Amino acid sequence: MSWQEIETPGVIVDLTIVEANLKRMQDYCDAHGIRLRPHIKTHKINALAQMQLDLGAAGITCQKLTEAEAMLGSGASDILISYPMIGPQKAARLGALAGKARFTVAADSPMAIETAAAAAAIAGAEIGILVEFDSGMGRTGVVAPEAALALMQQVLATPGLRLAGLMTYPASAQTVTFMAALKPLLRAQGLDVPPLSVGGSPKAYQTHSLGGVDELRVGTYIYNDRNMIAAGAASVDDCALHVIATVISTPKPGHFIIDAGTKTLTSDLSGAAHPGYGYLRDYPDAVIERLTEEHGIVRIDPALPAPKIGEKIRIIPNHVCPVSNLHDTITVVRGDGVQDIWQVSARGATR
Amino acid sequence: MSWQEIETPGVIVDLTIVEANLKRMQDYCDAHGIRLRPHIKTHKINALAQMQLDLGAAGITCQKLTEAEAMLGSGASDILISYPMIGPQKAARLGALAGKARFTVAADSPMAIETAAAAAAIAGAEIGILVEFDSGMGRTGVVAPEAALALMQQVLATPGLRLAGLMTYPASAQTVTFMAALKPLLRAQGLDVPPLSVGGSPKAYQTHSLGGVDELRVGTYIYNDRNMIAAGAASVDDCALHVIATVISTPKPGHFIIDAGTKTLTSDLSGAAHPGYGYLRDYPDAVIERLTEEHGIVRIDPALPAPKIGEKIRIIPNHVCPVSNLHDTITVVRGDGVQDIWQVSARGATR
Repeated sequence: MSWQEIETPGVIVDLTIVEANLKRMQDYCDAHGIRLRPHIKTHKINALAQMQLDLGAAGITCQKLTEAEAMLGSGASDILISYPMIGPQKAARLGALAGKARFTVAADSPMAIETAAAAAAIAGAEIGILVEFDSGMGRTGVVAPEAALALMQQVLATPGLRLAGLMTYPASAQTVTFMAALKPLLRAQGLDVPPLSVGGSPKAYQTHSLGGVDELRVGTYIYNDRNMIAAGAASVDDCALHVIATVISTPKPGHFIIDAGTKTLTSDLSGAAHPGYGYLRDYPDAVIERLTEEHGIVRIDPALPAPKIGEKIRIIPNHVCPVSNLHDTITVVRGDGVQDIWQVSARGATR
Repeated sequence: MSWQEIETPGVIVDLTIVEANLKRMQDYCDAHGIRLRPHIKTHKINALAQMQLDLGAAGITCQKLTEAEAMLGSGASDILISYPMIGPQKAARLGALAGKARFTVAADSPMAIETAAAAAAIAGAEIGILVEFDSGMGRTGVVAPEAALALMQQVLATPGLRLAGLMTYPASAQTVTFMAALKPLLRAQGLDVPPLSVGGSPKAYQTHSLGGVDELRVGTYIYNDRNMIAAGAASVDDCALHVIATVISTPKPGHFIIDAGTKTLTSDLSGAAHPGYGYLRDYPDAVIERLTEEHGIVRIDPALPAPKIGEKIRIIPNHVCPVSNLHDTITVVRGDGVQDIWQVSARGATR
């Protein structure tokens, strides 16, 4: 059976490309002595986490507790939740998980550390803490090295917690600046420089040049997407996931309508240089100009060949991770041939 | 139990506001002799479809076959799928459904009519056709009145199909222009003017002023959202659905981070006059400036009171329909009090 026979809209993933993408990143990390801890938020599928671990990943990264709960089925025994958890409900849920694998969590505030400590007490198991700092993203993470030092000291003074190191996302020149400012503060307190964990697929292959990185957290590299192509970090042929859609209407020249909208592709854009809501693999000059929930409105030069009603087309999404979150299943292919259907077990895992 | 005790991120829906919103629209339609056929894409929940039918709705509207399959459980006996279905897979699925309720589908091409005819043959049941025309949206729908006439004639000549009328979305001044141009063509063929079905919540209460509208398809009116407020069609107090989130980090003055990102709120914006990714009910001057998948980055004037880490906040989303599609359940409340948890039975129904 060919992917052309799949009902649309849907998602196909080419396992041959996945395998090549996974091997390339693992080989890079092995060559540079960096621990690879893949982020499963991109795929959310147990079998793919298992493939990453079998190739040599040191553990997995999840963004939310619900993802970690789903991923216990992958056989992962070392799980990082790279997100600060806050409050008694999260403590109770983390406490219920913490005995089932080696858990590490991110923290950028005293309350996040207290939440992890409460979870460790519930579990009767040690929980590792990565103190998060900001490398310019302006999201979570402390801004001042002094704040990182204070949180490290809080972790060291809290029973049930293990200081696992520092983390940031994405790695940048500011990562190096921050670490350089932190080191004398650590020395003054008689503390060692702890392990450093960084993230981000677009610049992953430059991680060794930052110096002092112990662990790399990357997700998108397994599938790649239009943002990765835009960043010069992947080619079209490196993209393992395609949305497939059917042309359902051709109401006027220079336009066609597909049955994939925001519920299939998301509303995520990819920067002004890459207009539209995805890259049409088979009509590269066409632009997915607008999306509504179930419709994609595609503009194409009327002088070019356009698809007919009923034709199935392939789209590389702008940002592949939230696309995984919209689909209950993916169809696994090798080339044109359909192999299997896999459940996206951590789809919708926002808590 | 108060909504403040719910784990975040999540969705709460106030049934008292829902009831008022539903009654207002039904009363309007009853007063003007317009059939109300609510679009369930906004809520995707059987119990809410049942409430709409109990109040007097003539039937329901679904956008996809999968939504219609899920909604058969609501007791709906008259279902419109306001979307052109194309090809043998859709014909087989529509054929399997068509005997279970009175079905009508949209068509804007000969192939969509052929698909419905194939389904009618499979089901041994008649299927109604609404011929879709474009009122300026530039999406599906024929552009020329002559094309609408030709499709109507195709329906009339096809066994198993019933000409149910014409449809467009959203209704506009161009709806009136199109109908005025079509009427002499119909007269010349000896055809009656068929029923007209229009859609769109923002201008729903002006439907009677268009003249000649028989049926109104509206979805968003059940919950309302920031786009409806922006259109002047709802107030903050008319908004029945809120996303609830927790403040998880306050890394620097004038900013706080919430645990709701694109996986919870979508990336949908609401126009330049209403910046950001939603309206913070409790901090109306704050702006949700950026979203990543699990983080919302909120900017607030440092001189104003800001929430502390651990505080739960309520957000009115920009566009409520795709938010429903991201959540497996909603928590039903009246005022502050939690009543129940309901499954979003047609979540993820894109096929």
